Amino acid sequence: MLKRMDENSFLYKMRHSLSHVLAQAVQEYRPGTKLGFGPPIHNGFYYDFLLPEPITTDDLPKIEKIMRRIIKSKQEFTFEELPAADALTRIAEEMKEPHKLEYAQELIEKNGLETLTFYRNGPFLDMCEGPHVENTIKLPADGFALDSIASAYWRGDEKNVQLTRIYALAFTNRKELKAYKLQKEEALKNDHRKIGAEFDIFHIDDEVGKGLPLWLPNGTVLRAELEKLAHELEFKDGYKAVATPHITKDKLYYTSGHLPYYEEGMYPPMVLEETRINEDGESELVQEKYYLKPMNCPHHHKVFGSRPRSYRDLPLRLSEYGTVYRFERSGALQGLTRVRGMTMNDAHIYCTREQIKDEFIKVMELHRKLYDIFGFKDYYFRLSMRDKENPRGKYVENDEAWDYSERLIKEAMDDLGVDYVLETGEAAFYGPKVDIQFMTVADREFTVSTNQLDFAVPERFNLKYIGSDNQEHTPFCIHRAPLGTHERFIGFLIEHYGGAFPTWLAPLQVKVVPISEKFGDYARQLEQELLGDMVRVEVDESSETFNKKVRTNTVKRIPILLIVGEREMLENTVTVRRYKIKQQRNMPFSEFRTMLADEIKERRHVQEW
Amino acid sequence: MLKRMDENSFLYKMRHSLSHVLAQAVQEYRPGTKLGFGPPIHNGFYYDFLLPEPITTDDLPKIEKIMRRIIKSKQEFTFEELPAADALTRIAEEMKEPHKLEYAQELIEKNGLETLTFYRNGPFLDMCEGPHVENTIKLPADGFALDSIASAYWRGDEKNVQLTRIYALAFTNRKELKAYKLQKEEALKNDHRKIGAEFDIFHIDDEVGKGLPLWLPNGTVLRAELEKLAHELEFKDGYKAVATPHITKDKLYYTSGHLPYYEEGMYPPMVLEETRINEDGESELVQEKYYLKPMNCPHHHKVFGSRPRSYRDLPLRLSEYGTVYRFERSGALQGLTRVRGMTMNDAHIYCTREQIKDEFIKVMELHRKLYDIFGFKDYYFRLSMRDKENPRGKYVENDEAWDYSERLIKEAMDDLGVDYVLETGEAAFYGPKVDIQFMTVADREFTVSTNQLDFAVPERFNLKYIGSDNQEHTPFCIHRAPLGTHERFIGFLIEHYGGAFPTWLAPLQVKVVPISEKFGDYARQLEQELLGDMVRVEVDESSETFNKKVRTNTVKRIPILLIVGEREMLENTVTVRRYKIKQQRNMPFSEFRTMLADEIKERRHVQEW
Repeated sequence: MLKRMDENSFLYKMRHSLSHVLAQAVQEYRPGTKLGFGPPIHNGFYYDFLLPEPITTDDLPKIEKIMRRIIKSKQEFTFEELPAADALTRIAEEMKEPHKLEYAQELIEKNGLETLTFYRNGPFLDMCEGPHVENTIKLPADGFALDSIASAYWRGDEKNVQLTRIYALAFTNRKELKAYKLQKEEALKNDHRKIGAEFDIFHIDDEVGKGLPLWLPNGTVLRAELEKLAHELEFKDGYKAVATPHITKDKLYYTSGHLPYYEEGMYPPMVLEETRINEDGESELVQEKYYLKPMNCPHHHKVFGSRPRSYRDLPLRLSEYGTVYRFERSGALQGLTRVRGMTMNDAHIYCTREQIKDEFIKVMELHRKLYDIFGFKDYYFRLSMRDKENPRGKYVENDEAWDYSERLIKEAMDDLGVDYVLETGEAAFYGPKVDIQFMTVADREFTVSTNQLDFAVPERFNLKYIGSDNQEHTPFCIHRAPLGTHERFIGFLIEHYGGAFPTWLAPLQVKVVPISEKFGDYARQLEQELLGDMVRVEVDESSETFNKKVRTNTVKRIPILLIVGEREMLENTVTVRRYKIKQQRNMPFSEFRTMLADEIKERRHVQEW
Repeated sequence: MLKRMDENSFLYKMRHSLSHVLAQAVQEYRPGTKLGFGPPIHNGFYYDFLLPEPITTDDLPKIEKIMRRIIKSKQEFTFEELPAADALTRIAEEMKEPHKLEYAQELIEKNGLETLTFYRNGPFLDMCEGPHVENTIKLPADGFALDSIASAYWRGDEKNVQLTRIYALAFTNRKELKAYKLQKEEALKNDHRKIGAEFDIFHIDDEVGKGLPLWLPNGTVLRAELEKLAHELEFKDGYKAVATPHITKDKLYYTSGHLPYYEEGMYPPMVLEETRINEDGESELVQEKYYLKPMNCPHHHKVFGSRPRSYRDLPLRLSEYGTVYRFERSGALQGLTRVRGMTMNDAHIYCTREQIKDEFIKVMELHRKLYDIFGFKDYYFRLSMRDKENPRGKYVENDEAWDYSERLIKEAMDDLGVDYVLETGEAAFYGPKVDIQFMTVADREFTVSTNQLDFAVPERFNLKYIGSDNQEHTPFCIHRAPLGTHERFIGFLIEHYGGAFPTWLAPLQVKVVPISEKFGDYARQLEQELLGDMVRVEVDESSETFNKKVRTNTVKRIPILLIVGEREMLENTVTVRRYKIKQQRNMPFSEFRTMLADEIKERRHVQEW
């Protein structure tokens, strides 16, 4: 599991102190620079700056040099605490930092802080809670490196001023820094765009449209296997699959609120015109607007509403690997990570008030079962609740439902015994949510799955069930998508496995390699038997030398090579060579067949047997 | 197999003669009526009329009465043959039939006929090839019934005048007519719209849009099982599945020719506007038009073209159960039979000239394998070739390719030993095709599947492969869809099975019925084990009497009821009751499990074991 860093660890203090050194260096390099925030992060730190004139990556080595000089100059970190009024005066007049001032005022006025704290090292002063190392000399002058420049809005809000962010890597020593860089470089070789093209996974064609991948045969196998996996687990958990159209009349989106609030994120409408004969026998022009669906929920609500429901029908778990279309600006599109058409492992669970907790636990357990199959370890849960003290009209008004459901979901998370981070103020408009956060190989955090409790939308759609009390009730709804979208998830999987998929998932599972042409018939006979078992298999029919064949197929990261020659043919055996395992093994073909079937059925991610 | 009627059979002659009697009766009932065509059909006959004033179904009994009078009046059918010029004079001056005159002129001028033939009975004269019965008294006065009124264009062309068609049923005697009517009535009880609503299969919601079915859980099971079936057989035949987006920029459809020629059948475009920064750093407004795809072919061509291809890649068989959208007039929409969104069992086979015949045979064999699984018997093949003598610019100009491929496909059909009807002049624009024709329960013929050979479109898309001669070649393409669209096929299946699906296809396969509440735990334990096998199973938890439970579940046409009570629980057995089979059978649960798994795996359509 990813953990938040321990604030008292040397790593935390070191990275945090280095960020102050960076700020000091930038203000020396570009006098007049104003500061944003500068926190430690999982692989180093960053600091945001409002620069009098821009910098490029060419400036970074020069700034690093200044930082090393500062480190060597043995500046001591000292702590100070000032009453609110004095603190504001210091920030405004001594430090002259407008962003820090704004933040300090908020802390005092909104959050009611009576004092503020500062850290000073040498000539540099920052409003900061610490902790820090005692002296700059403790910082690893060769354990850090300024890595990249990005832009960021002050406090992450695009209505605010745009700042320049400098990212840095930081480790306890040079060796660790080097090891990290190497590992990252290796991982980037597995960039899904690179492997996606090389391995016939997907293709984006400008005549079809940006952000609209064509899934090639190997990518389509991945999609199908993921859908099968989700279907199997969901089936056993009592989900019912549905299939809904990709377009819908505008009315539905006014009911859901997508129109007009989300219109910018949707494709523009198709305006259908038709002459119809009305009841008076006159012909009239009828106009209807159709939209591509940006989400599956409204359609699922329609399925719920397609007939009267009773409490006996609940929980009703409707699932669909549904394709939705969203308008993303073309500049933001990127490989499979940011697309305009995406197929989502969607489901909506309609339940009674009493069923929420059990259903939520079941959903979270489904996540764990799924992620275990892939061998994921680096992820964590983020529970977002509303900010009750500071609602600012962002949430559905229903205090009772909020309190009740937040308590239940927190209980559920605690019962499950998972580590999670609690974020106040990050809930969705219509209820609390749990995000599952992953790290990409490029070391960026992203959300794979979001589970939301919704106690507002079923009401908008006027969804009802008859309770055991014979009265009408509105169901609660849980939105969930453990495997996210095919696009993001497969993009992530490609990088996670570096293209070396486990057997159950691999587009090509087995390649039969005859030692020479003489054994081609035997190889093709094995191929036919495996095809009958629905195994994805091919015979290597190339005219290369045997060693070349083995090398080529290893480069293609095929999980299993079956080597067949004289002995294998006579004894009806195969010599099995697994990807990245030196040791070959000869066994009867019938035994191989059974073992392979088991490995695929159980979706083992360890390849050793 | 459906066969065309033998022209020398009594049935054919009787129906044909009755159509003349109908025409005579209508001209007596509505003097001034002009005639269209009036052929015998599989369950009777029809005749098309241009009436001086309209008729309704209320008029039909009156016309029947006149017909019976004519039959009793013993009119003899007599044959005459006239030279072309005399024939034209007779039609124009004696008969005064403008449509017949137009047709006669065409036969003489275009087809080069030198004589025309006529049949006369009593006062009625028709241009006709016969044959007929000798005398109206041979016609079964109580074996026919005027059935319905429809409208039809003269020669089926909507640019021509609209005529009124009277359909009639006709059998050799009253008993046969009655039996046919009864059977039809029974079949109509299984109308897919009725069963579709009753059995939670699909739902059409006006807020979503006309012709855009929401597939409910039971219908989604049917879709998934069909997709799985197609995938299994296609996988073993070497198909590779792909997945392509539902929208595309307009350019692709100009390449394919859908735009502008097929625009009326497509949804209107979505016009995307975006401000982008161009190369000179200026911002400009970019407009792109996106269309919903009306067919999958252009996308598959794009997949073919996504990388260089060699003859070693061929045949490349790309399959996709792809969803397409077409604009049908709202008045034409009907249940699942006529929709606007449809998911098609599509595939495109790219092959060399030499591979066409083998591939075509494989495709036809795939059809047979699939249809055998459903136990279909009433279908026939229709091979459509071009009309070489009379091309009228309707076909791609490439005489050599036409001759070659027509010969190959005819050879393939002959080699397969299937019965087929040859239609000249019905080929597609870009090559010959084979349609597979079915009859609905309402006794209308419809096309389930069309297989087309295409030697024009790959050229338009500039698709190429490098041959063994190291030269560039254009592949041939076979379009095929044995299971048609989910919408039409499932609509048809519902009626074919009358809602009593075979076990492999049934939305609910097994219902466990405990004799009393005492055995609920045992029932639920069996349920869990079967769920683990991915069997669709439920426990009957209702508080009804045992007999009522069995009745209710039989009405729902569930293939298997497992009855469990004291004895079953103690012995770990089940008592199996199959739909429509009186004989129950007790067996160990483990044995049932194996037998059920086999029945599902082999997709047996006979339910007896």
